[in-house]
Amino acid sequence: MTKDDQMAFEAALIARAVPLETLLRRLLDGRTLSGEIARPERLMAAMRHGVLNGGKRLRPFLVMESSALFSADVEPALRVAAALECVHCYSLIHDDLPAMDDDDMRRGQPTVHRAFDEATAILAGDALLTLAFDILADEATMLPAERRAALVLALARAAGAGSMVGGQMLDLEAEQSRPDEAGIIRLQAMKTGALIRFACEAGAIVAGAPSRDRERLAEFGSAIGLAFQLADDLLDLTADAHQMGKATGKDAAAGKATLVALHGPDWARDQLHGLVDQAHALLEPYGEQAALLKQAAQFVAARNN
Amino acid sequence: MTKDDQMAFEAALIARAVPLETLLRRLLDGRTLSGEIARPERLMAAMRHGVLNGGKRLRPFLVMESSALFSADVEPALRVAAALECVHCYSLIHDDLPAMDDDDMRRGQPTVHRAFDEATAILAGDALLTLAFDILADEATMLPAERRAALVLALARAAGAGSMVGGQMLDLEAEQSRPDEAGIIRLQAMKTGALIRFACEAGAIVAGAPSRDRERLAEFGSAIGLAFQLADDLLDLTADAHQMGKATGKDAAAGKATLVALHGPDWARDQLHGLVDQAHALLEPYGEQAALLKQAAQFVAARNN
Repeated sequence: MTKDDQMAFEAALIARAVPLETLLRRLLDGRTLSGEIARPERLMAAMRHGVLNGGKRLRPFLVMESSALFSADVEPALRVAAALECVHCYSLIHDDLPAMDDDDMRRGQPTVHRAFDEATAILAGDALLTLAFDILADEATMLPAERRAALVLALARAAGAGSMVGGQMLDLEAEQSRPDEAGIIRLQAMKTGALIRFACEAGAIVAGAPSRDRERLAEFGSAIGLAFQLADDLLDLTADAHQMGKATGKDAAAGKATLVALHGPDWARDQLHGLVDQAHALLEPYGEQAALLKQAAQFVAARNN
Repeated sequence: MTKDDQMAFEAALIARAVPLETLLRRLLDGRTLSGEIARPERLMAAMRHGVLNGGKRLRPFLVMESSALFSADVEPALRVAAALECVHCYSLIHDDLPAMDDDDMRRGQPTVHRAFDEATAILAGDALLTLAFDILADEATMLPAERRAALVLALARAAGAGSMVGGQMLDLEAEQSRPDEAGIIRLQAMKTGALIRFACEAGAIVAGAPSRDRERLAEFGSAIGLAFQLADDLLDLTADAHQMGKATGKDAAAGKATLVALHGPDWARDQLHGLVDQAHALLEPYGEQAALLKQAAQFVAARNN
């Protein structure tokens, strides 16, 4: 990916993020919905701090672009993208807690438990996870109930004990358990891969696409999820904290096994090329419509922050 | 409620809990479901510790009995009951954390963060909340997608920032903010009332009952939710730790405002009688079929542990 291509893609990311941020801001305001009693201001402020923090919104972008392959309506896809971003942000809030990764900064800002306190951060994460399922199940998402239920189920399977949360558990144990190569791959597929896979699959679900398309998009998501993690591990070895807006070199310092540590950066770069090729091949049937998703695969593999 | 009536009702509770515990044990075993990658054993053990701990299963009982009023199938109702219990247990695990209420014991056993560690307790709670929505949305719950989505939405609204999680936030702030009577009532309706209300309403949703029945059951749930909290506050003033299996007198020691502290125990007992009468009146249309739900209202108001 040339520097120009990367800048063009980042501009597309930013453009896509604008309506998403507007929606997230509305979903996180103080107004109660039917069935709610009151939204405590401090809790809502902590949720907004954890969500409206200048993230790149890669996962929402993947939902939007995947759904666009099948000409899905934009509004439902945007709500699904917002739900997914709530889950991603909740996971960051909880992972940053002192009992977990104990991070003070994220994207150049204090983490939620530093800006508020631990209890508020735990509750803000809990509420964001709950809100994600609220958004998906709501008739306001304007999808048939069958698709809303399918999205809830797929997100729960991608985020739960058998995937994302389980991956964080394995990651915390990794310093002790020293997983082998297969173990590292599984851990990463769970911790970061499953949600990226869901992002791509969700676009097909929103659109009511046939199951072979749903599977193809999920596979594309798995490929770029792997690339995402490899690029992250490579970056952790080579970048400095200023570039990342958070602490770096922590994995190596903690003695955590990564594939990059195991095989070296040259191997990792080769793997990244292979994964991008694989991701592009999966998108072949969609032709020109998949141009931005193809760029997303390159962006993920080449990202430097 | 006579001592004999109470014992008879407790026997009914225990009988109802048996198939629920069997289902919960199966839902929390190590086998992965479609879309999951692996279930880490330590995480699953922590989830089981938090769920399979001899709870009275009052909320599941309310789901089962409410759904029985409308002759709903037992299997779907049981899965909804299990989902609700996962949410209840996750909230206890997180509430017990050092950053929150900092409790070491629950039902005579070490709390999850004491039996495991803080990080594992946070993740076990997260995974249980996620699992609840998984269970509701799954086709295995054997309900039309419309009802599965409605259950997800109603549970999310009862458990989220505007209800249960928000109530815990207000409770943490209560020592500082010193809420007035209206504030205490709102806090308690959010923290404990909303989930009990959902339990009763869910029975009507499972059965596809008309909306006037759904509202009636929800109102019944609100009445016994209020009674539950009043009885709890009364107990906190009068019981000892041995009877409760957890620390008592903490509210008073922390200077937390409760309605019982405000108006005294005699007032609270009068209120409890009024709430039971109100709950019974709401069940009149259902005649003899509501006998156990009526007893549940009395049990909640009279409970001493």
